[in-house]
Amino acid sequence: MKNGSDTLLLTVDLAATFLFALEGAMAAIEGNLDFFGVMVLSFATALGGGVIRDLLIGAIPPASICNVRYAVTAFAGGAVAFCLNQLVQQVSGSVMTGLDAAGLSLFAVAGAAKALDYQIHPFMAVLMGTITGVGGGTVRDIFLARIPAILRVDIYAVAALVGAAVMITGIRSGMSRTAMMVSGAVVCFLLRVVSVWQHWNLPRAIGR
Amino acid sequence: MKNGSDTLLLTVDLAATFLFALEGAMAAIEGNLDFFGVMVLSFATALGGGVIRDLLIGAIPPASICNVRYAVTAFAGGAVAFCLNQLVQQVSGSVMTGLDAAGLSLFAVAGAAKALDYQIHPFMAVLMGTITGVGGGTVRDIFLARIPAILRVDIYAVAALVGAAVMITGIRSGMSRTAMMVSGAVVCFLLRVVSVWQHWNLPRAIGR
Amino acid sequence: MKNGSDTLLLTVDLAATFLFALEGAMAAIEGNLDFFGVMVLSFATALGGGVIRDLLIGAIPPASICNVRYAVTAFAGGAVAFCLNQLVQQVSGSVMTGLDAAGLSLFAVAGAAKALDYQIHPFMAVLMGTITGVGGGTVRDIFLARIPAILRVDIYAVAALVGAAVMITGIRSGMSRTAMMVSGAVVCFLLRVVSVWQHWNLPRAIGR
Repeated sequence: MKNGSDTLLLTVDLAATFLFALEGAMAAIEGNLDFFGVMVLSFATALGGGVIRDLLIGAIPPASICNVRYAVTAFAGGAVAFCLNQLVQQVSGSVMTGLDAAGLSLFAVAGAAKALDYQIHPFMAVLMGTITGVGGGTVRDIFLARIPAILRVDIYAVAALVGAAVMITGIRSGMSRTAMMVSGAVVCFLLRVVSVWQHWNLPRAIGR
Repeated sequence: MKNGSDTLLLTVDLAATFLFALEGAMAAIEGNLDFFGVMVLSFATALGGGVIRDLLIGAIPPASICNVRYAVTAFAGGAVAFCLNQLVQQVSGSVMTGLDAAGLSLFAVAGAAKALDYQIHPFMAVLMGTITGVGGGTVRDIFLARIPAILRVDIYAVAALVGAAVMITGIRSGMSRTAMMVSGAVVCFLLRVVSVWQHWNLPRAIGR
Repeated sequence: MKNGSDTLLLTVDLAATFLFALEGAMAAIEGNLDFFGVMVLSFATALGGGVIRDLLIGAIPPASICNVRYAVTAFAGGAVAFCLNQLVQQVSGSVMTGLDAAGLSLFAVAGAAKALDYQIHPFMAVLMGTITGVGGGTVRDIFLARIPAILRVDIYAVAALVGAAVMITGIRSGMSRTAMMVSGAVVCFLLRVVSVWQHWNLPRAIGR
């Protein structure tokens, strides 16, 4: 495990966890769940992707089970959304999209980097980064008994995938790890934000 | 791993497994599943919580995969429900609630205790106890393509959580492990039974 | 791990992976998912069963995460279905049933054999073989927010279970491993094909 500059990484990671927890809680409140349901969806949305990645790459127990800070942050996000949901709902859509894209970017590059650290093949590490970014939202949608949004609409998972791929290609070509993490995150962020702004969607199969 | 008094614990654990399997099978029969579906839901409801907990705390392979008695007990519960479902349906609601609360209590304290044994942080161990108690029912509801009941109604998961918290707080304060397991289970049981009797529910967010 | 004749096994395994990916993709296209959704369902349908089995028996990281050939094969199957779906839809139903039964048979015996290699109890190894065969389709149905087909209709999981049981009973009685893998697969294949042809279903509980 690399350790340099990890205080910054942990800070940003916890910030993304808080934000994803907030979004999970908003979905739970919209789905008319009770306080416990809000907390579960906060936890699952914020930490589900990382837990799945850790199980798949063999980092067991998962970081968010070993390190209590993740769960506390996720529950804090859920509690804030629960208590202040009328306030949170007034945050403008574009601010939320931007914050969400930032969280997605960080999770994607951090997840791919961790997979590389665990000797996972670069191609699979790109997938692990993508799972880290989108796994939580997928678990949330399954809990809400609906088809995960990432399978149907938007450039979302693909932004995570492209960001992780840029990072890993760079690292494999001998570039600095930190520089490539930043580059991958920026690519993911821009791709996501521009795709929302331009209403991009992925193609569907022809002739259904 | 602690071993003293574990014969009693295993007996009670298998009793709870049988009961949860019975409940999973009843849900499957109500959902018009076939014999295989009934068996899968028996297994998933009875053992799903423990399997998830074991994967998360690093007890791999999970106890219910290593020890064949759990699966046999779960399938026995499913088979009994399948063959005698008209009889089982006549068991009165309050008896079922009481038995179910007993199973929940045991799973919650046993799950939290096992997490402690695996050096999981006490706060996370409380969550692991809760997951042990309610994970099986959650998996069952996901198989039935509906929003898990524990996210929407009733004091159920919270009873497990409070019971596990009481137990772990006691153990951390130096009290006897056995005494605190019993106390935690009693608290969980009473909280669950009283909440059903009094129709308690958790609050929902204001201003949706 | 056994290694003799494993080149043949890997080839057949990848062929089954490709086929299951094709089927997953067809379900995704029918469900109106986008290109990313098609790829996810290809991956999940083809590799989900094996991933779950590997997590449960302690083969971590799972084979399909360690060995990049599985993911590449699954994505190839998904891409073929996406680009040529009008062609693939014209493959006759009986051909698809036959190919699917072949894939199921291979996954079931290979999964049970791997569980035995990991010292899992023979009874549980039969279950692990069944999960390997049907887990992917189950995950696909959960992603599509519907009750898994294997819980409701057809002799499908039971064919996998019987095939795995035949194989393991034979191996435990001292017969050759290879011979019993072939026998188990043939039994599973025939049971599945005959049950489709004869419209067999499992019983449901009486008196709902």
